[in-house]
Amino acid sequence: MGKKKKNRKETAGLPVIGMDMGGTKILAGVISAESKILGTAKRSTKPEVGSEKVVDRMIKTAREVVEEVGLELGEVAALCTGAPGPLDPDQGIVWNAPNLGWDNVPLGKLLSEGLGIPAFIANDVDLGALGEHALGAGMGTQDMVGVFVGTGIGGGLILSGALRQGWRKAAAEVGHMTILAEGPVCGCGSRGCLEALASRTAIERDIWAGVKAGRESIVPQLMESDDRERLTSGVIADAYRQGDALVIEVIGRAQFYLGVGIAAVVNLVDPEMIVVGGGVVEALGESYLAPVRTVAYQYFMNKRGAKDVKIVPARLGDNAGLLGAAVYARQKLAKQ
Amino acid sequence: MGKKKKNRKETAGLPVIGMDMGGTKILAGVISAESKILGTAKRSTKPEVGSEKVVDRMIKTAREVVEEVGLELGEVAALCTGAPGPLDPDQGIVWNAPNLGWDNVPLGKLLSEGLGIPAFIANDVDLGALGEHALGAGMGTQDMVGVFVGTGIGGGLILSGALRQGWRKAAAEVGHMTILAEGPVCGCGSRGCLEALASRTAIERDIWAGVKAGRESIVPQLMESDDRERLTSGVIADAYRQGDALVIEVIGRAQFYLGVGIAAVVNLVDPEMIVVGGGVVEALGESYLAPVRTVAYQYFMNKRGAKDVKIVPARLGDNAGLLGAAVYARQKLAKQ
Repeated sequence: MGKKKKNRKETAGLPVIGMDMGGTKILAGVISAESKILGTAKRSTKPEVGSEKVVDRMIKTAREVVEEVGLELGEVAALCTGAPGPLDPDQGIVWNAPNLGWDNVPLGKLLSEGLGIPAFIANDVDLGALGEHALGAGMGTQDMVGVFVGTGIGGGLILSGALRQGWRKAAAEVGHMTILAEGPVCGCGSRGCLEALASRTAIERDIWAGVKAGRESIVPQLMESDDRERLTSGVIADAYRQGDALVIEVIGRAQFYLGVGIAAVVNLVDPEMIVVGGGVVEALGESYLAPVRTVAYQYFMNKRGAKDVKIVPARLGDNAGLLGAAVYARQKLAKQ
Repeated sequence: MGKKKKNRKETAGLPVIGMDMGGTKILAGVISAESKILGTAKRSTKPEVGSEKVVDRMIKTAREVVEEVGLELGEVAALCTGAPGPLDPDQGIVWNAPNLGWDNVPLGKLLSEGLGIPAFIANDVDLGALGEHALGAGMGTQDMVGVFVGTGIGGGLILSGALRQGWRKAAAEVGHMTILAEGPVCGCGSRGCLEALASRTAIERDIWAGVKAGRESIVPQLMESDDRERLTSGVIADAYRQGDALVIEVIGRAQFYLGVGIAAVVNLVDPEMIVVGGGVVEALGESYLAPVRTVAYQYFMNKRGAKDVKIVPARLGDNAGLLGAAVYARQKLAKQ
């Protein structure tokens, strides 16, 4: 089953499949030429079954979503999926994805052969930023940095209107800029990375440290009533809103460091906008972002026009990755 | 005396004047179309005489260097000067230069009217990086970051082959990325900036703190025999080479932070090369840079191909600014 190459004119009007694949789930959408999501499909990733079967699951999900919107694969111009990196977007190879257990998986080729349409891959966070830039909070900007706060902290750079993937395809690791050189050890092995100070994981670590040290907090109680084993963004947001002193202190520290980190990004690349997304930020919204913004502006080296640099919440939620993937696929098709 | 506009073809073969103006001196050179420095001239800036007279001194220096190489101003395509920022390179206005006492000085217009040739201005450190990229250590790279360690720490970004000045013309403030959030207060008012940890000023501060606290050091003695009031890079390098324990400790700390700072830059923009220049680095050479490199590689988030990212000393010394200015002038002329 070879892929039929269509020329640029033929593909421009066709929908594409945007996909986002992570350690937990595979999310796919058919996206029209007008960037509307025509339909979506979802499946758990089950990384434990191995890369071959995960790719099969991706292919199934793609077929499913195309069928779901009443199309055939021949009526779709291409697929693009976000994947955890590091990866080679040009060759379509996932070099290494620890949370999937993958090593040198030629994901692009496998998807393209399995579906018979062109298939592209790119870093999942890069695609999230691209989505926010093209269709979300960053629309109309030339220079935008996406910062996504979750288990880790990921980033994506749009500079002079284009996604910057970096010379080694390793750019935009916002979470691994050192902010506090003598700070806590990060999952990456360095010390004091932004991720070790302001991710949900860091917030969780500091809340548990407080609880274990005997600090009063409603967190254990909230988790019990919610039947949760992990401290989710939702529980953190609840405790914060209910005025839990420990959570407010820990969140305050994370906000400070996130502001300092955003300022470091701004002092280096001087973008027009910073788009902040991810679980905790989405759960708390503007009340989370306001102090972050205040700190960031204070740490801008150049105060001239500082407040013209917008620091805003992401708009697309989980769809950022899908939509960014669709944008990326179209950019790739246009260059072929 | 209006400026005569030449068309692109007429100017392409002509030399340009490259200039670098700082708080201490004005340095000018006539640079041929083949990027050879045909001659240079120098004058102290004397910022205390006010902006008008400083501009006169710049104009005199430009006339002098043109005469020096046996040309007339009509045989020169343009002038470009580096100036301390923040400034608007497009409008040719120095917004604010604290160490000159300047506020909203239309430097480009004043120079152009005074000399009768097109005159451009840009951030001095940006031009240093551009010089190193076009004609120095960074030749042939697509993505290069210049880091210049002196009284402060300045930077310049070349991304995808072009100088990135930033959305507010405030990019590449490498020295003001926060590396140690709870660290020493920086001249900019923030805390723990790279500049407050690894500049010559920071090194000087820490050496004096040690001396005042009674630590043994040959520094006071070296300065006396050298008849120096300030701790120059030369004296620091001498003490280091002679095995002064205090200086070695302080330098070691500065090297660590510089390595961490370079890694933060790499983790964000992922360039092909970092070019490190400035007094201390030039005075100590590879013995200064080797530990910086070791730390930096350790702090790279993505270890794949880490050592392909070159961290090298600058090559052009004081001429980087002049040559970068010439390159910038030609780029501007080509776009007109």
